[in-house]
Amino acid sequence: MGIATMSKKNVTACLVVIGNEILSGRTRDANVQYLGSALNDLGVNLTEVRIIPDVEDVIIETVNSVRRCFDYVLTTGGIGPTHDDITSASIAKMFGVALLRNPEAEKLLHAHYKPEDRLPERMKMADIPDGGILIYNPVSAAPGFQLENVFVLPGVPRIMQAMFEGIKDRFTGGDPVRSRTLTSYLPEGVMAGPLAQIQADYPNSDIGSYPFVRDGKIGSSIVIRSTDHGHLNGAAEAVAALMREKGGEPMEDGL
Amino acid sequence: MGIATMSKKNVTACLVVIGNEILSGRTRDANVQYLGSALNDLGVNLTEVRIIPDVEDVIIETVNSVRRCFDYVLTTGGIGPTHDDITSASIAKMFGVALLRNPEAEKLLHAHYKPEDRLPERMKMADIPDGGILIYNPVSAAPGFQLENVFVLPGVPRIMQAMFEGIKDRFTGGDPVRSRTLTSYLPEGVMAGPLAQIQADYPNSDIGSYPFVRDGKIGSSIVIRSTDHGHLNGAAEAVAALMREKGGEPMEDGL
Repeated sequence: MGIATMSKKNVTACLVVIGNEILSGRTRDANVQYLGSALNDLGVNLTEVRIIPDVEDVIIETVNSVRRCFDYVLTTGGIGPTHDDITSASIAKMFGVALLRNPEAEKLLHAHYKPEDRLPERMKMADIPDGGILIYNPVSAAPGFQLENVFVLPGVPRIMQAMFEGIKDRFTGGDPVRSRTLTSYLPEGVMAGPLAQIQADYPNSDIGSYPFVRDGKIGSSIVIRSTDHGHLNGAAEAVAALMREKGGEPMEDGL
Repeated sequence: MGIATMSKKNVTACLVVIGNEILSGRTRDANVQYLGSALNDLGVNLTEVRIIPDVEDVIIETVNSVRRCFDYVLTTGGIGPTHDDITSASIAKMFGVALLRNPEAEKLLHAHYKPEDRLPERMKMADIPDGGILIYNPVSAAPGFQLENVFVLPGVPRIMQAMFEGIKDRFTGGDPVRSRTLTSYLPEGVMAGPLAQIQADYPNSDIGSYPFVRDGKIGSSIVIRSTDHGHLNGAAEAVAALMREKGGEPMEDGL
């Protein structure tokens, strides 16, 4: 089992969510789910997420450590106009490059803000680490950037998603992971033994079991993920047969 | 600024979310927000979160690394009856102790399951690393456990929350962090300069700015967090005055 067996060419990503508001519980993160799914569609496995505070040393140490371990690193948060937006400066420091006013980014902000609205704090959003390739922002103009394998994005989900759409061609994925989900009103415990056998029979698939309670009834979803069509479908049919054998009614893709 | 200044005695926690389903985007995590907020109420700062896959080596390496850096470590996920539930065995291996059938946990499962439902895979949930102190489960019986500063909890939010309620007295917090939130329909950019000054004037507070778009209108919430009442209220009043000066109407605790 395990991630490494899931793709012939396993391409990995780590997401670093930068934001005190997520850690304090004030805001519920939405970017992990979106990027996990969107990267998966590109054949890139989101293999780890770190959620860290808006603290320069922590940003530098974390991003510097993960960029060596994963094919791609994405960060969200901390590229706005206020004093707590320190991601761009931290990333510049980490790479040992200057944070410079980027002429193209400046033009984009000028096109977005009327002259009287071009406050110095807003124009700070045109400061990009030297060598950074811009990531365009169709919602609110202020760009993100890419430096080597690190992609710096904003934290607001709607804006982050629009920007991510524009950089999908910068990722080279491995074999895409496909999944099938079978759900029934059976507790996972009654399937656990045979399910382990199905996992052993189809080692190129990754089988997960997710219990739930709905309308007072206990059930579980069995998710099979694989880059190998044969193993995916073989395991899914075996799981469906197991559910029927235990008196359940397998439903595909939810209830 | 920064976490270190937020509490006279800064007590830290790291949450390790174990689950492929979160990384693949299938499931949106709910435990970070709940535990961030609940720990904060106990005077414990959730300082980092790591989301990792159900892979033994990764679980061992991650938990082993963070348990030395933070006062408390909590894990969620991977303690059910199926083959992909490997957290307890991984934690036992990490601590170099045996995974043993715990008599008390066995009793709890016997009380919950009728004899014909006591399948070996379910009874596996009574296997606890040697020396582990049980964490009781009022919902579905299968316990979690604590070993040194590591607390092992399930992933299903409803069950995790019920279990966390029962272990609150095992945490010794620092000074509680209080917060005030001021919201107005002003873009954060127009406040950014003076806001940096307010942060400088009240260094014992941690001021964050969170923009939003609601009903087509741009606004921002300014969150002040501090263990110091004077700085908390001083900064909040200064932010309210700033919002009025810029033509906004400050509202406390949301719109």
